[in-house]
Amino acid sequence: MKQLLLIGIGPGDPRQVTFEAVDALRRATVFFVLDKGGDKHELLQLRKLMLERYVPEGGYRLVQLEDPRRDGQHQDYVGAVQDWHRARAALYARMLEDELAADDIGAFLLWGEPGLYDSTLRILDLVRERGVAVQLEIIPGISSVQALAARHRIALNRIGEPLIVLPARRLAEQAVIDNVVVMLDGQCAFTALGDPGLTIYWGAYLGTADEILVAGKLVEVKTQIVQVREDARRRKGWIMDTYLLRREG
Amino acid sequence: MKQLLLIGIGPGDPRQVTFEAVDALRRATVFFVLDKGGDKHELLQLRKLMLERYVPEGGYRLVQLEDPRRDGQHQDYVGAVQDWHRARAALYARMLEDELAADDIGAFLLWGEPGLYDSTLRILDLVRERGVAVQLEIIPGISSVQALAARHRIALNRIGEPLIVLPARRLAEQAVIDNVVVMLDGQCAFTALGDPGLTIYWGAYLGTADEILVAGKLVEVKTQIVQVREDARRRKGWIMDTYLLRREG
Ligand SMILES: C[S@@+](CC[C@H](N)C(=O)[O-])C[C@H]1O[C@@H](n2cnc3c(N)ncnc32)[C@H](O)[C@@H]1O
Ligand SMILES: C[S@@+](CC[C@H](N)C(=O)[O-])C[C@H]1O[C@@H](n2cnc3c(N)ncnc32)[C@H](O)[C@@H]1O
Repeated sequence: MKQLLLIGIGPGDPRQVTFEAVDALRRATVFFVLDKGGDKHELLQLRKLMLERYVPEGGYRLVQLEDPRRDGQHQDYVGAVQDWHRARAALYARMLEDELAADDIGAFLLWGEPGLYDSTLRILDLVRERGVAVQLEIIPGISSVQALAARHRIALNRIGEPLIVLPARRLAEQAVIDNVVVMLDGQCAFTALGDPGLTIYWGAYLGTADEILVAGKLVEVKTQIVQVREDARRRKGWIMDTYLLRREG
Repeated sequence: MKQLLLIGIGPGDPRQVTFEAVDALRRATVFFVLDKGGDKHELLQLRKLMLERYVPEGGYRLVQLEDPRRDGQHQDYVGAVQDWHRARAALYARMLEDELAADDIGAFLLWGEPGLYDSTLRILDLVRERGVAVQLEIIPGISSVQALAARHRIALNRIGEPLIVLPARRLAEQAVIDNVVVMLDGQCAFTALGDPGLTIYWGAYLGTADEILVAGKLVEVKTQIVQVREDARRRKGWIMDTYLLRREG
């Protein structure tokens, strides 16, 4: 039985980590970290800084992995993601067999909240299907969505109404946009919306020193957001942003 | 200008509190706590225990408030909630004027995540409209929804799909239930659903010593959940539960 902790480490600010997460960081003996190359290198550094801060005495091992590339050209999005999950599962299965002894406790440091648009849990299901017995513990973390709302000083939902969180590729098919949080938007999907009743609350690099916030009527600020976003992405080489769209009135 | 902190303290487990929240607890000089009477008295106790744990040296003031009762019989739900918010806003405005000096930092300890189905932010907007200048800082907290997913070891969303979170009174009008989290369900709204494809992941008192988890095909476990829920509610005098409904396949 391989023991594994999936630890939510929040959106970037080491103070936005729970005591439970730090206990887990201190219990783990082996950390698995994925290096997605180039762009995301800084995120790997941020994880290492969390470890240095909360486990200053060391005594753990870091196992670094190259992430298998996802086929970005694939026609079928879910199919492509599933193929990629299978490739990752093969990698994880091998790595758990090779790197985790019976008395080790392995851990993944997951950005934000482990349950929100993170594939690790799903991949570990596939690892189990490959016959590797895994015992999991999940530690919730503050998601970027919560950081977004806190920094804009807004509630995520309106009185008695639903909250919808979706990946940008599902925004176009969302018939009614009353109160929707959008994640994973590499293409500024919000620019396609023209409804003058919509307000946008946008945030990038939330919880980090580079945090940027923009809020306003969507039709009035969308060009500004595209510009600010592109400038920041060029300067840093990568960007993570999320936003809430709300119809006022 | 009244300085106020809205501090998310997670779903009940004092270890599921962030370092940022503890910093905030230690900065505040006055804590406003609402006693909803009877049922929710234990929740007030849990808040006090958090304070004792994280600010053991004391040095703060506790201001306890009686919560104005909400009209449960009101035909118009949103209207009733708005009336109640106005009553609370009057109370809060008076309390901020009376209890918070210029060099004080006031704080509310909010259950779970401050942005999720919590009325404090909205009420403070109304307080501002009454002419009280308030400077707010919001500290995100782990929501019961995240605790639910972590304890059931599931992701909140499926690959590339939306996550919908809604109050139980909106469940009946939800045309398609693929992946929906339900909160504020006093009436077991899930019992009205008969779709054999639905799985339910249910949790009560998440993060506390009384935590209860039930998962399974909705049609197979719903009677059990109603029973377990009613027993627990009788025994403790109150209950807080939430669940995720997912159509498998
Ligand atoms: C793979 S998902 C992971 C989400 C993460 N589990 C969470 O709870 O925030 C990545 C997306 O999350 C959002 N995101 C994550 N961290 C962010 C941050 N610090 N600032 C803004 N958006 C962020 C962006 O929408 C990004 O495309
Ligand atoms: C007024 S809302 C507040 C939600 C809170 N802000 C949060 O983030 O979890 C109260 C509802 O949250 C859910 N809830 C809060 N704490 C819970 C807990 N410890 N276990 C299960 N459900 C909980 C229940 O659905 C309850 O009816």
